[in-house]
Amino acid sequence: MSDNLVISIDAMGGDNSPRVVIEGINIAAKRNSDLRFLLFGDESKIMPLLKQYPKVAKVSKVIHTEEYVKNEDKPSQVIRNRNTSMYMAIDAVRSGRARAVVSAGNTGALMAISKMVLKTIKGIHRPAICTIMPHIDGKYVMLDLGANTECDAINLAEFAIMGNIFAKHALGLKAPRVSLLNIGAEEMKGKEEIRQALKILKNPQLDINCTGYIEPHDIANGAADVIVADGFTGNVALKATEGTARLVVRLIKRAVKRSIFAKIGLPFMMGVVLKIKKSMDPRSYNGAMLVGLNGLSVKSHGGTDGKGYAVAIDNAAKLVRQNFVDTIRQEVEKVDLDELNQESIYEGYYL
Amino acid sequence: MSDNLVISIDAMGGDNSPRVVIEGINIAAKRNSDLRFLLFGDESKIMPLLKQYPKVAKVSKVIHTEEYVKNEDKPSQVIRNRNTSMYMAIDAVRSGRARAVVSAGNTGALMAISKMVLKTIKGIHRPAICTIMPHIDGKYVMLDLGANTECDAINLAEFAIMGNIFAKHALGLKAPRVSLLNIGAEEMKGKEEIRQALKILKNPQLDINCTGYIEPHDIANGAADVIVADGFTGNVALKATEGTARLVVRLIKRAVKRSIFAKIGLPFMMGVVLKIKKSMDPRSYNGAMLVGLNGLSVKSHGGTDGKGYAVAIDNAAKLVRQNFVDTIRQEVEKVDLDELNQESIYEGYYL
Repeated sequence: MSDNLVISIDAMGGDNSPRVVIEGINIAAKRNSDLRFLLFGDESKIMPLLKQYPKVAKVSKVIHTEEYVKNEDKPSQVIRNRNTSMYMAIDAVRSGRARAVVSAGNTGALMAISKMVLKTIKGIHRPAICTIMPHIDGKYVMLDLGANTECDAINLAEFAIMGNIFAKHALGLKAPRVSLLNIGAEEMKGKEEIRQALKILKNPQLDINCTGYIEPHDIANGAADVIVADGFTGNVALKATEGTARLVVRLIKRAVKRSIFAKIGLPFMMGVVLKIKKSMDPRSYNGAMLVGLNGLSVKSHGGTDGKGYAVAIDNAAKLVRQNFVDTIRQEVEKVDLDELNQESIYEGYYL
Repeated sequence: MSDNLVISIDAMGGDNSPRVVIEGINIAAKRNSDLRFLLFGDESKIMPLLKQYPKVAKVSKVIHTEEYVKNEDKPSQVIRNRNTSMYMAIDAVRSGRARAVVSAGNTGALMAISKMVLKTIKGIHRPAICTIMPHIDGKYVMLDLGANTECDAINLAEFAIMGNIFAKHALGLKAPRVSLLNIGAEEMKGKEEIRQALKILKNPQLDINCTGYIEPHDIANGAADVIVADGFTGNVALKATEGTARLVVRLIKRAVKRSIFAKIGLPFMMGVVLKIKKSMDPRSYNGAMLVGLNGLSVKSHGGTDGKGYAVAIDNAAKLVRQNFVDTIRQEVEKVDLDELNQESIYEGYYL
């Protein structure tokens, strides 16, 4: 497996594991012939599935684990249990046997174990959860989505640096427009730490195309390529977005169901319906990355199917091929954010 | 005008003032025969409009003002100028000449002047901005939407008390389900001040049907009647919701436009389109209330039309008739939140 790209998999994480996991690998392996997999989990459940998916069996090695992290487990209860499929899959990245880990399991546990085992990149104070989302004309990157409830200006600036690299790699942009999520009118614009983060990001020493603040209603318009927020705010924005999109779709469905006239028109609309469905399909955006660690840890949605799981694997592979983690390391080495922060406090002339 | 309900109006606030304002009064006056209006603003602009709308002229008294607050004015610049239409309209509530004030002008200035002139109700530490929004099966109330960027547990508990009364009055609910907006998995659920606020709200001394936390993706499902958040988070949730709803509608429009087939089906769909449009029409939800002050201050959307402005007036009148402000005063007098807060810190057995 030396010339190949190895990804370790927590085969027991997610609602319909390991079936969905194996189905996902089957799809991703067809698209990425260089991928090899370390499957951590219950052999008695994985082996019968590998018989059904001989392609997966060919590119995978199964490492039996007796235990696995359940959705209801508290991170503190499981973080030190080295015998779970999740822990062992993450540890394979630390030891160098794999380049990235994918799990559809317990988010809190995945974050906690990834942080403890992989450790934060030197120069990064806190890792963040990062994902890709659709806007009207394309895609954007948002972070943090929940790893850090409270953040200071330096944390936010670090997220911006990582998000910038992420957008370059994952979205193929040359100079992503990086914005800080904020609210309100000019004078009282949002929170102190956000204003301070903007000062840091405007420092010419940082090669970031920082476009200032973005208000939440402009996210969907594609006004920025990278949206930076603390984990609480980012999570609220993301989930409010998801909830509303689902609401509108449900309202339309219900209204169509109640109208005979609309039912007659429906066949003509199927093209449009399928197009919208495709462009908003959460499976196309599956895979939240824990960025800022010495290794890539990817969280798949727990309720996704094989198609969605394959997207998470694709994304992980893409970032590994582009040396995402090393690029972050290099960028962070170039600057001393604490110094930039002090400068902006004392001089404050970048704005 | 003694037996009538007087509302003071900042006739100069909003994008198309005073035209939209007068149109709004015209609509609202037809629906509410007891309403009388004090119109503060530039006589030379208001008088010609009153000739066009004799019904409005009959129920209104114009008080000429030389100055008005512009959208780009900073609150600190205008807060002490007693000669603006906004200041004078608010001051009419303080002096008892009007029971509520409506303005479509500068939000920051309206908040700042309302707070300074009307002052906070005794027992309430901070006023909040509150509005009504649509969910899948009805409406919900959300606060704070931006008056307070940072909040502690007591602030949040006060918002819950006020939101509870607001939902009883404005939505006609007997025991509104009051929830705190929060994120995350059990153990690390959100922020300390939110967890602490929940403890206070669970105290049986408070007669609130507090249903715990609500996650942002459940807002649109109608999982709560009152959603309580700090002003930063509430504003983000509200604006992300608005932005996404608009995105989905635009995506559908664009897809239909590009498909001949869909255009054929479109006439059959018009009933559904109009229904959805109506149920999500922002004009139907116009009017954000500044609650917690000695008097009611209502912010209309600056870009609304006469129909939307009339809804803001309707809402203001409805709350005045129900003695909304007095009810808050009475509820707040009943309990000592600081004491409940201390209790919950030391005993903490309500959860």
